[in-house]
Amino acid sequence: MGNLLAVDAGGTSTRAIVLTTSGECLGYGRAGSGNPISSGTEHAAREVASAVTLAMHAAGADAIDSTPVLAMAGSRAHVSSEWIGGPLAAIGVSGTVRFESDLLATFCSGAWEAFGYAIVAGTGAAAIRVVDGRPNRAADGLGWLLGDDGSGFWIGRRVVRAVSDHLDDRGQTTALTPLLLDMLGIPLDLRILDPEDGRVESLKHLVDEVYALRPIELARFAPLVFAAGDDPLAAAIIADARAGLRTTLASIDSADVRGPVVCGGGVLGTLGLPVDGLAGVTEIRKVADGAVGAAVLALRDNGVNVDRELFERVTRTLAVLRG
Amino acid sequence: MGNLLAVDAGGTSTRAIVLTTSGECLGYGRAGSGNPISSGTEHAAREVASAVTLAMHAAGADAIDSTPVLAMAGSRAHVSSEWIGGPLAAIGVSGTVRFESDLLATFCSGAWEAFGYAIVAGTGAAAIRVVDGRPNRAADGLGWLLGDDGSGFWIGRRVVRAVSDHLDDRGQTTALTPLLLDMLGIPLDLRILDPEDGRVESLKHLVDEVYALRPIELARFAPLVFAAGDDPLAAAIIADARAGLRTTLASIDSADVRGPVVCGGGVLGTLGLPVDGLAGVTEIRKVADGAVGAAVLALRDNGVNVDRELFERVTRTLAVLRG
Repeated sequence: MGNLLAVDAGGTSTRAIVLTTSGECLGYGRAGSGNPISSGTEHAAREVASAVTLAMHAAGADAIDSTPVLAMAGSRAHVSSEWIGGPLAAIGVSGTVRFESDLLATFCSGAWEAFGYAIVAGTGAAAIRVVDGRPNRAADGLGWLLGDDGSGFWIGRRVVRAVSDHLDDRGQTTALTPLLLDMLGIPLDLRILDPEDGRVESLKHLVDEVYALRPIELARFAPLVFAAGDDPLAAAIIADARAGLRTTLASIDSADVRGPVVCGGGVLGTLGLPVDGLAGVTEIRKVADGAVGAAVLALRDNGVNVDRELFERVTRTLAVLRG
Repeated sequence: MGNLLAVDAGGTSTRAIVLTTSGECLGYGRAGSGNPISSGTEHAAREVASAVTLAMHAAGADAIDSTPVLAMAGSRAHVSSEWIGGPLAAIGVSGTVRFESDLLATFCSGAWEAFGYAIVAGTGAAAIRVVDGRPNRAADGLGWLLGDDGSGFWIGRRVVRAVSDHLDDRGQTTALTPLLLDMLGIPLDLRILDPEDGRVESLKHLVDEVYALRPIELARFAPLVFAAGDDPLAAAIIADARAGLRTTLASIDSADVRGPVVCGGGVLGTLGLPVDGLAGVTEIRKVADGAVGAAVLALRDNGVNVDRELFERVTRTLAVLRG
């Protein structure tokens, strides 16, 4: 068996790694969104192929004949690999793609151990319990309408509602209002009233701007809670988001499954996670993405046993390639 | 001036009334959704014309040459009456349509007075303060993403989240779960687990069913909170909805504007509204829809002064026609 190929395909960007069976990363490539659910199969296939081409070129590899691993959200929905098989074969990747969950890739990016937890809060939010190196139980990840408690969307929705409550006189004054209006380019003068309904003009502009977005795009307003200083409403949103994520993790916490919790996603990085009182969590580790984990899964899925030493070699050699 | 024409065009159904300038209702007609925003202008125009044709036929009227009044949500957005002018002219209605707000029609359905409040909670939720017979200040009505606190959508969203929290082990057990699953035709056996993620199968079915709906359709689940007996979670949703609607009304309450609050919409009818401590509210009146109010506005917009006696004649004669 020659070199291995691992891909961590996210909704924003995609990372590809070519590595040896002894865990040395030889090439790394990066491209745009490689998630076929959020970006469509054609776009996703192009971005994955682009990241893989870069990684193979950097590694000096013309062909990959081992089993390629592709970690992504919604991996279960893709029993067929048709959308990506052809485009990869065209650039010299001949094996049948094996899909892995993005949450497992997050876990394996921070842990060589076979037991523990992973939790991710970016635009959405979800957690898994890992037993014997495999996902054993999931929590949340139910999307913006039903769940994703503590996610970027969840926080962003609270932000826009706090501001519209303020502007509509139905809620308290908040420092989030000038921050959000500024971000949307809406004038801040609260003395200008709409003659028709007696409300501040800015409210009508806010309504127009928000409904012009896809709901999930409200996630872009999440960072405002961290920019609002000691605003009590922003602090309450942060506290509630943290509590929501803790509830998600607590729902799968088990004294029988002791190990690290690996945290991923932009929101969780800033928010922090309270884990006191959880029976299974031995420590918190943060990771930037699932790239190392995808490489670890490529090793395992090709029959290589990954111990601590091998895990650290993958982490170290990939960090060098990423600069 | 001959007979008058009034139309109360809602998102579910449309009511048309032909009446004399002395407030006697002569004909009544009913059809489907006449709101061009929710149903499209073509469909809305057809339904409005259908209700008007029925009302004119019942009144034995071949033509209407006074100013017709059309009350509907989003009336401000329709400065042009093009979508409805042609279809009405084709059935003998020659005047230029005057649009009025559905909230003002609700107020005028329950009050001949010139001062007071109206609040409606159906799929959405909004309130107005009325001064000198005209809308003076609005509150909420900001739609499902930004507001509509206490509305059918707002309650329905809380219901589906309570059930998904329960099924995902992240929230408490609730009597809403069997009610919602039954309504959606999802099997209730909580012992059947998905082998892939360790969660109850019913949760996956629930996610599929909910995301297949347009968000606003979650309003159809609102009635479940009233069917859940003494379930603490259902009771909390009801209490929060009531508090949200009270906050909306309180935000426009003024000691300088004393009068009745007229309540409309299916949700508010069941929920009830706490008004203790509001300075401007003298009493609560409930109405089924805005039909009487549309007729009152047709009288006023055609120069007729509507006093208590005239208001009561409209109410009485319309009730006879509606049976």
